Amino acid sequence: MTTPSRNFFLQTFLALPLLLLALVSSAFAQSDPLPSWKDGAVKSAITDFVAKVTKDGGADFVKPQERIAVFDNDGTLWSEQPMYFQLAFALDRIKAMAPQHPEWKDTEPFKSVLAGDIKGLAASGEKGLMELMAVSHSGMTTDEYAAIVADWLKTARHPRFDRPYDELVYQPQLELLGYLRANGFKTFIVSGGGVEFMRGFAEKAYGIPPEQVIGSAGVTKFELRDGKPVLVKEPKVEFIDDGPGKPSGINNFIGRRPILAFGNSDGDQQMLEWTAAGDGARFIGIVHHTDADREWAYDRQSHIGKLDKALDEGTAKGWTIVDMKSDWLTIYPPAK
Amino acid sequence: MTTPSRNFFLQTFLALPLLLLALVSSAFAQSDPLPSWKDGAVKSAITDFVAKVTKDGGADFVKPQERIAVFDNDGTLWSEQPMYFQLAFALDRIKAMAPQHPEWKDTEPFKSVLAGDIKGLAASGEKGLMELMAVSHSGMTTDEYAAIVADWLKTARHPRFDRPYDELVYQPQLELLGYLRANGFKTFIVSGGGVEFMRGFAEKAYGIPPEQVIGSAGVTKFELRDGKPVLVKEPKVEFIDDGPGKPSGINNFIGRRPILAFGNSDGDQQMLEWTAAGDGARFIGIVHHTDADREWAYDRQSHIGKLDKALDEGTAKGWTIVDMKSDWLTIYPPAK
Repeated sequence: MTTPSRNFFLQTFLALPLLLLALVSSAFAQSDPLPSWKDGAVKSAITDFVAKVTKDGGADFVKPQERIAVFDNDGTLWSEQPMYFQLAFALDRIKAMAPQHPEWKDTEPFKSVLAGDIKGLAASGEKGLMELMAVSHSGMTTDEYAAIVADWLKTARHPRFDRPYDELVYQPQLELLGYLRANGFKTFIVSGGGVEFMRGFAEKAYGIPPEQVIGSAGVTKFELRDGKPVLVKEPKVEFIDDGPGKPSGINNFIGRRPILAFGNSDGDQQMLEWTAAGDGARFIGIVHHTDADREWAYDRQSHIGKLDKALDEGTAKGWTIVDMKSDWLTIYPPAK
Repeated sequence: MTTPSRNFFLQTFLALPLLLLALVSSAFAQSDPLPSWKDGAVKSAITDFVAKVTKDGGADFVKPQERIAVFDNDGTLWSEQPMYFQLAFALDRIKAMAPQHPEWKDTEPFKSVLAGDIKGLAASGEKGLMELMAVSHSGMTTDEYAAIVADWLKTARHPRFDRPYDELVYQPQLELLGYLRANGFKTFIVSGGGVEFMRGFAEKAYGIPPEQVIGSAGVTKFELRDGKPVLVKEPKVEFIDDGPGKPSGINNFIGRRPILAFGNSDGDQQMLEWTAAGDGARFIGIVHHTDADREWAYDRQSHIGKLDKALDEGTAKGWTIVDMKSDWLTIYPPAK
């Protein structure tokens, strides 16, 4: 063999694995990580942001440990109509507990709940609702509560879609969460919902582990029962993770300012502002519920997930407003 | 060439990388991940536990996402004598703020602090201490507070060792934290100390990111200042992460029961009990301060880090009691 010929074989042999690798990488690069997001300005805003903050040596590069992404839950990661899913859980609990409470037949707000009288329930106002939440979410140990939530998620069905509540999560957001994590982000829920309620499904539904779920919390009391320690849920609020409480919750639980925040209502406004106010590149997203056919259409006048001031601020400041009807090709994942 | 000979060469060629790998692995396996822990029962208890819960298919195997390890901070990860380091910070802050508060010269507990009168300070009791903590830890934004802590850590020196406070961390525990993380554990601080104070050094000193630091917290208030959102630290306690508060804090922040917990005082007792009460293998450790020469010796009679009931319970239940004097070959890392 001549020397050139030997080199040719050698080079081909050495280059082959690299060539294969390049082909495979290119195939992966071409596969769309966000197939349920329609191509357009909104989708590009997401992918441009992620490209920018992950480009090593780029002006907007953010170290992986600082890639904190926070998502509201109700109306941002799953639906919240015709009532917050946690309220549906609370009403089911009241019905299940009623046989042990004969006095509820004559006492509001329980009477209305048991009679299925939504108007009567509404008349009991915020005080009545808080009482329902307290009664249905306290008096048991944290382990017992977790078992009750797990059982409810298995058996309860959403009235409109006749599906388990934890299947009514948004497919585009599942893709976004996965895409962010694949790019080194740590994804958190920051929601007004009960932290222990959300942990009942967050890991399975979203791939978000319990320690990355931040929410409203009740006081728990440490007790020894037959020498075994338990935490008993008390009917006292410890922290409300809503509105201005969200930046406080982020500060207390995460201790770093997020670089990406997603919400859908005025209750998220301060979290979005807090995230936007940091130095460097930021992504601020709002889910605008515009799809009465596939989900619901509501904003400024809604009692649930009211989106008014945050919509004005987001529009004025160039935040990314997701028009559910046109930006999302799919709403929910297929039934299991 | 005969066929056997060709096979011999081929086999040798193919086996070489495996052989090298085996040699390298073996070298790594022989390198001690805990060189500052003296060989013996305590060290074996740690390595046996980690081997057990990480052995795929073993009876005690724990999935990586459930390998939660919690550590108290003061007296468990760093020293706490002659006073909690955060109290030293608070006293320094009072002195720095004094020129703006001429009235403090005649008002307790400030008068005693400014006069360096520890007895007078002690006489002001818990109420006086709480006032010092409130004044030194509130009234500024969270960003301003973080800058003050960072500055203090850079300039303040421990009176006995003349070293920055964040160098008085325990070398054996640094090794343990790293060893646990190398084995898929997620390491958390669960301490009575202020969460924002600890975040000033936890990542650099221990490799524990802010979102894995749980501590006592004050209320923060969201405000817009010149259109820019800030969180202002208020002189109000939100949560005390001590004693029975520790299991509540773990439940609220982590939402999973740890499989390993390390403390050093009666303030950790409920956290240790809570961890021990879970199903499956558990490791419960207590640092017993027995080394007056290299650190301090104190337990049942100490005002700081009192270890009495937890020592009895730990001894009775076979928890791992670390005798600092005999189990730790080194106390602090070398000066930087």
